[in-house]
Amino acid sequence: MSNDAFVPHPDRLLPRDPAVRDIARELYGRMASQPIVSPHGHVDPAMLVEDTPFRDPTSLFITPDHYVTRLLHARGVSLADLGVGRGPLEEADARRAWRLLAEHWHAYAGTPSRLWMEHEFHDVFGIEKVLTPGTADELYDHIAARLARPEFRPRALFDQFRIEVLATTDDPADDLAAHRALADDPDFAGLVVPTFRPDKYLEPAREDFAQLADALGEAAGVDTGDYAGFTAAMRARRLYFRDHGAVSSDHSHADVGTARLDEADAARLFARARGGSIDPADALALRRHLLADQARMAADDGLVMTLHPAVHRNHHRGTFERYGADVGADIPTAVTFVDGLAPLLNDVGLAEGFRLVLFTIDETVFSREIAPLAGFYPSVYAGAPWWFIDAPDAILRYRRAVSETIGYTRTSGFIDDTRAFCSIPARHDMSRRLDAHHLASLVAEHRMRIEDAAALAETLPSQHPREVFTLPGGAR
Amino acid sequence: MSNDAFVPHPDRLLPRDPAVRDIARELYGRMASQPIVSPHGHVDPAMLVEDTPFRDPTSLFITPDHYVTRLLHARGVSLADLGVGRGPLEEADARRAWRLLAEHWHAYAGTPSRLWMEHEFHDVFGIEKVLTPGTADELYDHIAARLARPEFRPRALFDQFRIEVLATTDDPADDLAAHRALADDPDFAGLVVPTFRPDKYLEPAREDFAQLADALGEAAGVDTGDYAGFTAAMRARRLYFRDHGAVSSDHSHADVGTARLDEADAARLFARARGGSIDPADALALRRHLLADQARMAADDGLVMTLHPAVHRNHHRGTFERYGADVGADIPTAVTFVDGLAPLLNDVGLAEGFRLVLFTIDETVFSREIAPLAGFYPSVYAGAPWWFIDAPDAILRYRRAVSETIGYTRTSGFIDDTRAFCSIPARHDMSRRLDAHHLASLVAEHRMRIEDAAALAETLPSQHPREVFTLPGGAR
Amino acid sequence: MSNDAFVPHPDRLLPRDPAVRDIARELYGRMASQPIVSPHGHVDPAMLVEDTPFRDPTSLFITPDHYVTRLLHARGVSLADLGVGRGPLEEADARRAWRLLAEHWHAYAGTPSRLWMEHEFHDVFGIEKVLTPGTADELYDHIAARLARPEFRPRALFDQFRIEVLATTDDPADDLAAHRALADDPDFAGLVVPTFRPDKYLEPAREDFAQLADALGEAAGVDTGDYAGFTAAMRARRLYFRDHGAVSSDHSHADVGTARLDEADAARLFARARGGSIDPADALALRRHLLADQARMAADDGLVMTLHPAVHRNHHRGTFERYGADVGADIPTAVTFVDGLAPLLNDVGLAEGFRLVLFTIDETVFSREIAPLAGFYPSVYAGAPWWFIDAPDAILRYRRAVSETIGYTRTSGFIDDTRAFCSIPARHDMSRRLDAHHLASLVAEHRMRIEDAAALAETLPSQHPREVFTLPGGAR
Repeated sequence: MSNDAFVPHPDRLLPRDPAVRDIARELYGRMASQPIVSPHGHVDPAMLVEDTPFRDPTSLFITPDHYVTRLLHARGVSLADLGVGRGPLEEADARRAWRLLAEHWHAYAGTPSRLWMEHEFHDVFGIEKVLTPGTADELYDHIAARLARPEFRPRALFDQFRIEVLATTDDPADDLAAHRALADDPDFAGLVVPTFRPDKYLEPAREDFAQLADALGEAAGVDTGDYAGFTAAMRARRLYFRDHGAVSSDHSHADVGTARLDEADAARLFARARGGSIDPADALALRRHLLADQARMAADDGLVMTLHPAVHRNHHRGTFERYGADVGADIPTAVTFVDGLAPLLNDVGLAEGFRLVLFTIDETVFSREIAPLAGFYPSVYAGAPWWFIDAPDAILRYRRAVSETIGYTRTSGFIDDTRAFCSIPARHDMSRRLDAHHLASLVAEHRMRIEDAAALAETLPSQHPREVFTLPGGAR
Repeated sequence: MSNDAFVPHPDRLLPRDPAVRDIARELYGRMASQPIVSPHGHVDPAMLVEDTPFRDPTSLFITPDHYVTRLLHARGVSLADLGVGRGPLEEADARRAWRLLAEHWHAYAGTPSRLWMEHEFHDVFGIEKVLTPGTADELYDHIAARLARPEFRPRALFDQFRIEVLATTDDPADDLAAHRALADDPDFAGLVVPTFRPDKYLEPAREDFAQLADALGEAAGVDTGDYAGFTAAMRARRLYFRDHGAVSSDHSHADVGTARLDEADAARLFARARGGSIDPADALALRRHLLADQARMAADDGLVMTLHPAVHRNHHRGTFERYGADVGADIPTAVTFVDGLAPLLNDVGLAEGFRLVLFTIDETVFSREIAPLAGFYPSVYAGAPWWFIDAPDAILRYRRAVSETIGYTRTSGFIDDTRAFCSIPARHDMSRRLDAHHLASLVAEHRMRIEDAAALAETLPSQHPREVFTLPGGAR
Repeated sequence: MSNDAFVPHPDRLLPRDPAVRDIARELYGRMASQPIVSPHGHVDPAMLVEDTPFRDPTSLFITPDHYVTRLLHARGVSLADLGVGRGPLEEADARRAWRLLAEHWHAYAGTPSRLWMEHEFHDVFGIEKVLTPGTADELYDHIAARLARPEFRPRALFDQFRIEVLATTDDPADDLAAHRALADDPDFAGLVVPTFRPDKYLEPAREDFAQLADALGEAAGVDTGDYAGFTAAMRARRLYFRDHGAVSSDHSHADVGTARLDEADAARLFARARGGSIDPADALALRRHLLADQARMAADDGLVMTLHPAVHRNHHRGTFERYGADVGADIPTAVTFVDGLAPLLNDVGLAEGFRLVLFTIDETVFSREIAPLAGFYPSVYAGAPWWFIDAPDAILRYRRAVSETIGYTRTSGFIDDTRAFCSIPARHDMSRRLDAHHLASLVAEHRMRIEDAAALAETLPSQHPREVFTLPGGAR
């Protein structure tokens, strides 16, 4: 069937008007082959340590990717049938899941997931057909055969993808053995850095708060029985991470309140939380204080703070209980930054070396709060569109919303935030095409000189995130 | 005056770029003549039972259409001069109102009301002039003359408009005699179905709550003296509606809270509401429980729930007291869905046969909440842009906001929601043109294959809403 | 260096598609040379009374313009180095500040500040080079030389800019001597009108509330010891302003609540505020009442009310303490209008002669609340995009968000709101280009007749704001 033939178009995502497209091509051309700098994501570093081949197309493309599973679930497919919450699938089950994707593939038309996966099918696996029920088995076999080859093992792909830096997301009590192993491995040249993610240690209302504090103390070799010890342990673990290459800490709570308690109150509330007797209002006050503490530590140790607030996690309890977290049932909520962050920014917003990257899925916040904050505070950067809005039109809306106030230089650079390893080049490529699209539109409407757009194109993909995230080569 | 000549352009609302427009024309061509499936609206079914001719241009186009009257009011015209809140107008008064519209017609430039009415003037009435003070009388006479002809009576227009299904909006205590009459009439082949709209019966703070409960009980033949009886009566009326063809219930409250009470508390609060002694906080809690009850019933009886929350009704009291409701003074407010709907969706969000269509005029909610919910729950659909945003740019914003997360298949299909009968084809036509516009843009930027866009064009206008609203021909 | 050559493109900000651009050029051509009507801004009238030459390029373009200084500050430049919070700069310091701007000029690419300043460089100063570190001194010298010439003094520029009306912003206790001097000066033909800005007098929680009330009483010659006297003084000062040419009052509080107290409660709370013993909740209630009073007075005296709510002023206290207000650290917050304004609009929303112009930086409010309110109440107008969103894409978003509900006629016309005198023509020119852009898009997509767009183009820039703000020539 000739209808099955398909390769991603070289001009995809660029503007359609021929004159604008020519400018966009020129700008994209400057960006396309720059190395990938990925300062925030969720790839498991063990994958690179062990370098074991990927098991099959389903475990690579479907099961772990909640972008893919959630829409299948919404269309009536059981998560179990996609392998979610199960161990490794038998070949027959994996193939059945793949066929389910093929059957519903038309419903992904217009989504970034489909664009990313088609990019991967073509650029990584050399596929020149569209996925349909008719081609499902052929594509499955094709990918499975490639996965058995050495050049499709994780480290080989890491090189092929031209990844310069890859940040993972890690528990503060993690010993970072995988990162050490990679750093010590003479056969691996890539830079894989951990990210300090202390969210759960900062939520005093959690039932397991005492155990978490214990675990933190154990990792740090510090007694976390009181607030002073807890703080010392937290600071120690941050330094441990920094010494293992970390450049940032990542934070996601229900809001961004950062009002400080006085130290005595903090100690008193901490003791209650430690003892399991803190009430919800005090737990909230303590959490905000502890987040403010993280900012103070960041101003000292230089880890860039990234803030992704306001998500209703595990919206459907039954799904969580059966399948666990991160299966597509986290739903964003409304958020405001201005009042909540005022204590933090009054405390360290002008501190030398402090940096704060703000993310939102509440799009009206871009022009109303994030751009104005990033347009005044030297510490604040507007984070890239994240998650449900890491998509073509949303990325263009973001650029149009923030760049009239802060240009390009006060933005974070692209953050892929992904656990889907093979999608990393596709996601970065999409971002570059869209920046070329946006810049070309400005040039075409005589709102920006081509020289200025070209200079941005040279630095945006790699050099800019190196600088914002204080990565090697990014000193300013 | 040659300047008066005007016919709607065949390419209106399609993209201007020639290459994109060609794609859009091809897609629109597949949609243009499909039958109209209208699963939610406010046409009075008695109009079709009686099939009496429309009285005059003013009572057809102006008086009952708050889209039209509100802007005239804002420009200083008295609602009374437009016939609002009065009985049928004398011919001289009707003509005077029509001249007022003509005098202000330039102020409607760029509004969908003007596009719809110009579509109607041309396609329904064969007018090829623009409305101006100079042409007002001529157009009035022209329309009035047509309205006297048999082919302009409601049933004839129903056929001419190619309406396959038309849903009305009805009180739960309504005996649906008009619907029965239409169903039983061998001379009427159309399908006109009722919609269950219980809002006021679910507001325990209303002064007339006891009378409403009585009326519901009487209609159901069930004693609604207590909560159990009220619930039984509600269930019975829903089934009565379903047996008369209803496929959905429609709900609009100030928020979407759905927290359940335990049954004893619900019974206790109901008794207080029945006795007129419920306080506002309890009334709110009970309303949220009763809305959650509707969802449970929907999971049983299969009526699709549509939710249009967050409107400040009758914002100007003096206008309400003089002219009544629905005259243009209802103003939308901010809304969030995620936390409010969590109890409902945890209860029945995965239930077989339950469906929930979410509408908003708070546009930031589309990408932040509605698309993520519809992209996980099999029961949830993103409703079409509604009311103040049922307009070209807003509809394109909606498609761009939701389709990157959920494609087209998790959206409701177009809902005209209108009480202006003659505008139905114009509104559906506008929606089809805009979907063609959006899809063509995706195709032109190589973000969607033309084959996928064409397949969507074939199913979106008619088959898709048949499926979402479980209408005849829509079985999945 | 040939690369330094630069003049603003005559088609800048117009659509790129050739067919659409031709329409936009035709529409812009009708608007370009209309006189400037500026009904709200922050120019100091003393500048025009004294007509002293501008001191140097830095004091003209950098120091007083927080649009310019804030982004430099975000990029690590000290406000002090830009002259903020200091007296007049020595020539060497002024030149150093100018070089700092040149060094960071690339970071302004894509911002309206750069477009405005490049417009000014070229149109006002005849510069045909881009600002770079290499051209900084040359441009500084060029501008400085021009500023010494008589035709670059404020009054000469006022004429050259074709300013018909310029509104300033003034304290209610101001004696308006500058405005009187201008009105009485036979050598000055321009119309410079004051604007009544009573914000701080309406905030009973302020520590200096009693002193402010005293000052108001003194200006009015009325004892403001009680609420009745305060109200009489306020009314008197409004009339004084009106008698000196004022057409509007301007208001910005944290919210738009307007619930009235009964008169006895108002008097009681006023007495407490006067005595310095009012608590925060009562102060809030009294402020809302006092704002509602302003609306009642406006309905009597005809001053148009403009409302710019919801800004977190002086977000960074240390910056405020060192440099004062208005240096770029005011950050917008979320806002809603519908419930807060209901008391006010029920009170005077239909009153003959009352007018209310609503502004927001919370963009979702445009389609959700402002357009619906302005599309019903004859008194309400949708204000132009303000401050962080007074920029090309944001202005287009505004037009696309409101004009589908209210067309163009229920909008305020462009408000420059600037303290940067030389930017006034550039800002109005940008607005005209963008209206031409938007209208041309509608015409090109056959959503508006060219005749209607042309008629709007004729009236939008000058006649429309004359009418909305009851300026000379604006009688309706």
